[in-house]
Amino acid sequence: MEEIIDLLEQNRLSELKEILLNENPIDIADVFEEFPKEKCLIVFKILPKDLSSEVFSYLSPEKQQEVIENITDEEIRFIMDEMYLDDTVDFIEEMPANIVDKILKNTSSDKRKLINQMLKYPDNSAGSVMTVEYISFKGSITVKQAIDYYRQVAIEKEETDICFVTDNKRKLVGLISLKTLILSNDESLIEDEMETNIISVQTKDDQEEIASLFRKYDITTMPVVDNENRLVGVITVDDIVDVIDQENTEDFQKMAAMNPSDQEYLKESVFSLAKHRIVWLLVLMLSATFTGFVIRRYEATLQSVVILAMFIPMLMDTGGNAGSQSSTLIIRGIALEEIEFSDIFKVIWKEFRVSLIVGMILSSFNFIRLYYFERVGFGISFVVCISLFATIIMAKVIGGVLPLVAKSLKIDPAIMASPLITTIVDTAALMVYFKLAVTFLNI
Amino acid sequence: MEEIIDLLEQNRLSELKEILLNENPIDIADVFEEFPKEKCLIVFKILPKDLSSEVFSYLSPEKQQEVIENITDEEIRFIMDEMYLDDTVDFIEEMPANIVDKILKNTSSDKRKLINQMLKYPDNSAGSVMTVEYISFKGSITVKQAIDYYRQVAIEKEETDICFVTDNKRKLVGLISLKTLILSNDESLIEDEMETNIISVQTKDDQEEIASLFRKYDITTMPVVDNENRLVGVITVDDIVDVIDQENTEDFQKMAAMNPSDQEYLKESVFSLAKHRIVWLLVLMLSATFTGFVIRRYEATLQSVVILAMFIPMLMDTGGNAGSQSSTLIIRGIALEEIEFSDIFKVIWKEFRVSLIVGMILSSFNFIRLYYFERVGFGISFVVCISLFATIIMAKVIGGVLPLVAKSLKIDPAIMASPLITTIVDTAALMVYFKLAVTFLNI
Repeated sequence: MEEIIDLLEQNRLSELKEILLNENPIDIADVFEEFPKEKCLIVFKILPKDLSSEVFSYLSPEKQQEVIENITDEEIRFIMDEMYLDDTVDFIEEMPANIVDKILKNTSSDKRKLINQMLKYPDNSAGSVMTVEYISFKGSITVKQAIDYYRQVAIEKEETDICFVTDNKRKLVGLISLKTLILSNDESLIEDEMETNIISVQTKDDQEEIASLFRKYDITTMPVVDNENRLVGVITVDDIVDVIDQENTEDFQKMAAMNPSDQEYLKESVFSLAKHRIVWLLVLMLSATFTGFVIRRYEATLQSVVILAMFIPMLMDTGGNAGSQSSTLIIRGIALEEIEFSDIFKVIWKEFRVSLIVGMILSSFNFIRLYYFERVGFGISFVVCISLFATIIMAKVIGGVLPLVAKSLKIDPAIMASPLITTIVDTAALMVYFKLAVTFLNI
Repeated sequence: MEEIIDLLEQNRLSELKEILLNENPIDIADVFEEFPKEKCLIVFKILPKDLSSEVFSYLSPEKQQEVIENITDEEIRFIMDEMYLDDTVDFIEEMPANIVDKILKNTSSDKRKLINQMLKYPDNSAGSVMTVEYISFKGSITVKQAIDYYRQVAIEKEETDICFVTDNKRKLVGLISLKTLILSNDESLIEDEMETNIISVQTKDDQEEIASLFRKYDITTMPVVDNENRLVGVITVDDIVDVIDQENTEDFQKMAAMNPSDQEYLKESVFSLAKHRIVWLLVLMLSATFTGFVIRRYEATLQSVVILAMFIPMLMDTGGNAGSQSSTLIIRGIALEEIEFSDIFKVIWKEFRVSLIVGMILSSFNFIRLYYFERVGFGISFVVCISLFATIIMAKVIGGVLPLVAKSLKIDPAIMASPLITTIVDTAALMVYFKLAVTFLNI
């Protein structure tokens, strides 16, 4: 990095070029992000054209826009020719309208047609993730013909080791790996060597379902077909890694009571961050007032034994934590397809037994602390510990059940996480607590 | 599924075999999981041997054990010959000692040596994830020689389209894809065609770091070298998908205050579930008592204005939720390497501005509700809303800062999530609340 800056400042560009040629394009793109505009453009222009367009595809949208605004139409045309179609579509989606015009003007009409078609697929669908740069041929040709064909077209295509086999109507009938092509006899027919037991998805399928197919079948390349089973594209596993990250980020956000956003934190505006957070905070604040009503109802009880208030935070926090432990495990189990709605009774029975153990330990611990160390008297120690025990059982069972119920109602289980569970359990916990206090302390 | 059961019951085994031959081995393994032992064994034995060992590698450890206990030594030997080494190691790690003996007895001594070596790598290290079934050759041979060599050895190796190039001391010097092999001139030397700009990892590197390399460089195959840069194995992207799932599950568990466990929920024992949950619950329960001490300190205040207790849950819950929103975004940003410790001032400034907006909206909303609808009087409405405002600011700034501080202290940022933030914010919120109450309500 410092070396690059030094060379740039001393204008020793040919030495700089030598160094950059040995670097990974992704690392060069990283360096660009740190550089001021003028320096980027100088470096960009000394790179050989195929390397510069590869570096370009790894830049952040902000840098890409900066570059596009400052290079010639001819240079834009070269980048558009070189970039893989799925990267091009991702890039165009991030650009403002005037830049998009400038880009499309410099794109060949064939490619422009494909780009427009891909821009129409709904967000997060197979169509929006796939690339159309796959290799396909007919089953009636020989292995040798297939390899010759591969040699002609492969340079332009995205790195993949799977070729597809289609019939006369472009319908997908099989696939064959480079490995099989190399291992097969030159004169064999493709249709005799190909794999016909294929897993494929449709253009409108959701990316989350596609990710679970990749996970389940350990595949690296997935064909995408239209509703007449005609091959239209391919999804590779490196794109699925991004999908998995994105889906997990969404789950984390929903579980922390936020509307999901796919922007990076440091790049998202303050207003947009606030907007994604405010709705759930309002809803949960209003539901927390129900817990307040429970306290108001027992105002007289509290007035005569004010010390009861001292244990409210401990009961609320422990209940919330116990519940969110359970709901998190169940939500995650549902996301990884390890737990289904039909397991609900197994979950209840398991959580009940876990909560007995956990509740017993926490309550005993608390009783000793309250009775022997804090010396708040037997009555109050007893009421607090029984309430704690009951709270933990409720919290764990509710935390285990609600995500499954949500799933069966086709609501995203992730919203049944810590914040919502906490609010529900809080109210129940305080009701039990005051009820027991009134009964046992004769208030 | 029903069809399979019907055919089994009518003992029409050859028809059944026909059907199964067209199924994906992973789907057959799924069917096995639902079947009682006797049926599994019947089906297992009618499958051709290579298919049956593939099905075997996809079974759950419970089913694998069942099968191993009920087949002959010869059948075990066949499975051990056919299974990929990394699957074999995963399988052996799950078996009880007597089964492991039975298995190793029926494994060739070469393979046994490799298995023992791989069992020694630490959990979650590159060595424990890699497979040793890669293809490598010298750079001095021609493309044609390389393809001939590939034809001889590839059938036995795990599906991969990358071959490695090593020198005389087995040191890794390059890699070449099947695509490049096919596209290159038969007489070219491998060393002229290979890619030398390689990203590799060492056997002891942590799988989480390896996953981020896969993510960053969009690669599908990663060579693993020892500390003298000698090639010892390879990690493929399908294994990395599992690693990403596992790392995310761990983060979810830590963020819900649990010690991480890599067992599936439905398969984990009640005792083990309780053990993973109890420690954090105890710690957090004890810290929540600090919040209780704040209340005790203001017992007199509470005695004279009992209604103040009514707003404790709302303040605690909203503070906790506001803080966990921020901490979740920061924790996730750190995990995806989008946020670093050096961004701490950007984060503070951003969270401060977000909390101003969010705090303003929630407080105004609350003031209107308390003053006009609940009619609790201006003083109390005012104190509650100012406390709420202050709580939200504290919560968001603390929630943003603590994960970054943890990261810089080399503590896992994921533990700075909802539960811990909630407890810290609770105490601070109630201190502000009572302080303001004493000051403004002249108690």
